[in-house]
Amino acid sequence: MGAITAATGHFPAKIKALACDVFGTVVDWRGSIIAEGEALGRARSLAIDWARFADAWRAGYEPAMALVRSGSLTWTNLDGLHRTILDRLLVEFGLGGLDEQDKEHLNRVWHRLRPWPDSIAGLTRLRTRYVVATLSNGHVALLVNLTRSAGLTWDCILSAELCRHYKPDREVYQMAAQLLGLAPREVLMVAAHPNDLVAAHGAGLATAYVRRPLEFGPNRAAERDPAAVDIIAADLVDLAAQLGA
Amino acid sequence: MGAITAATGHFPAKIKALACDVFGTVVDWRGSIIAEGEALGRARSLAIDWARFADAWRAGYEPAMALVRSGSLTWTNLDGLHRTILDRLLVEFGLGGLDEQDKEHLNRVWHRLRPWPDSIAGLTRLRTRYVVATLSNGHVALLVNLTRSAGLTWDCILSAELCRHYKPDREVYQMAAQLLGLAPREVLMVAAHPNDLVAAHGAGLATAYVRRPLEFGPNRAAERDPAAVDIIAADLVDLAAQLGA
Repeated sequence: MGAITAATGHFPAKIKALACDVFGTVVDWRGSIIAEGEALGRARSLAIDWARFADAWRAGYEPAMALVRSGSLTWTNLDGLHRTILDRLLVEFGLGGLDEQDKEHLNRVWHRLRPWPDSIAGLTRLRTRYVVATLSNGHVALLVNLTRSAGLTWDCILSAELCRHYKPDREVYQMAAQLLGLAPREVLMVAAHPNDLVAAHGAGLATAYVRRPLEFGPNRAAERDPAAVDIIAADLVDLAAQLGA
Repeated sequence: MGAITAATGHFPAKIKALACDVFGTVVDWRGSIIAEGEALGRARSLAIDWARFADAWRAGYEPAMALVRSGSLTWTNLDGLHRTILDRLLVEFGLGGLDEQDKEHLNRVWHRLRPWPDSIAGLTRLRTRYVVATLSNGHVALLVNLTRSAGLTWDCILSAELCRHYKPDREVYQMAAQLLGLAPREVLMVAAHPNDLVAAHGAGLATAYVRRPLEFGPNRAAERDPAAVDIIAADLVDLAAQLGA
């Protein structure tokens, strides 16, 4: 736990700001959806495997973004993408009878995801020394609502929405550095997902991998740490410790 | 003090978020520039009327933005506009001999402006009940630095930079509502400047005028309260009280 592994061999000494992925890295989307789904199931007498439902919802996310990326679909924010996937899943899981209010409330569970146990303490510590921003595919309104609901803390909310490109498109990482008024190498991308870090590195940012072994549930085999990142952290408090915050 | 004056006759009951002007409304640009200028003057043995200097710097701001608005100048952030004005003023005030490091540090005084005495307490109270965002002509990096330096607190940083239009262009107010995921009438524009509020009202936002009688110094005659605004507040703590926060 807490092992420092500067896999690229150069600790990023000039870091001034952190750009943090949110879904999976800071908040536990799967556990939160299961918990809200089970509460809804009890209220509406529905017998659904909510873990399977959460996984299916998340599985629809990459293909939905790919439609935007390819230009097949005009810019659509995550509420829109999530709702399209949800409407299909509701039929597949036999939930088509939910009323519109329930559907819309369920769709906005992504605005109410719970933080991992270390997230608030870690972000609070990191902010004492660094500018800490989101850099998420969530839109600004979602991130604002999520931040208030989960009690998170940031210096600013940066979102894929601001450049209308979804990560891992290069434009998102470039935008973050530009809006923060920094050179890319002064910005540390923080994420639990290697593909996000590979793309950030490609845009010139420093990279920190945060292990979230439970993101996809307890039955998923632990992923190996990625090789080409600047920092590997056990969680956000460990990241703060490694960064001297 | 603290008088409620719902001048348009309808208290905005559906407000969910506040969009706050920053320069003059939340921070005291004039007093801050005078204080930093006087410190610089002592360090470099310069005898300058810093109040006149601050007023001249501010006076260059509207014409500089007008160049961007008209398309005569491509998008340029406030650091760029401030520096162009500053370079002219340094000559006019006999400060052309300052070295580049002093000039750049002085130009970034806008990143270090001090809050009015009520600002932190008012924003903190307002955030307990409302989403509170900046809506400033300052660029994101400036607003992030200013927020950290002054100890301010926001749910998110919204800036003219995000749509590359300066207030009072209509696009800025429309962008704020869109990014917050709200109808314009659910957003309250908070500003000490009637022209900002007139434009916000034109874009469908609710409006709150905050009196800042000292913004332009103690010798300026107090302005009359504007007529067509939803709320008039003595300061941000008074605004919080009027809004039930």
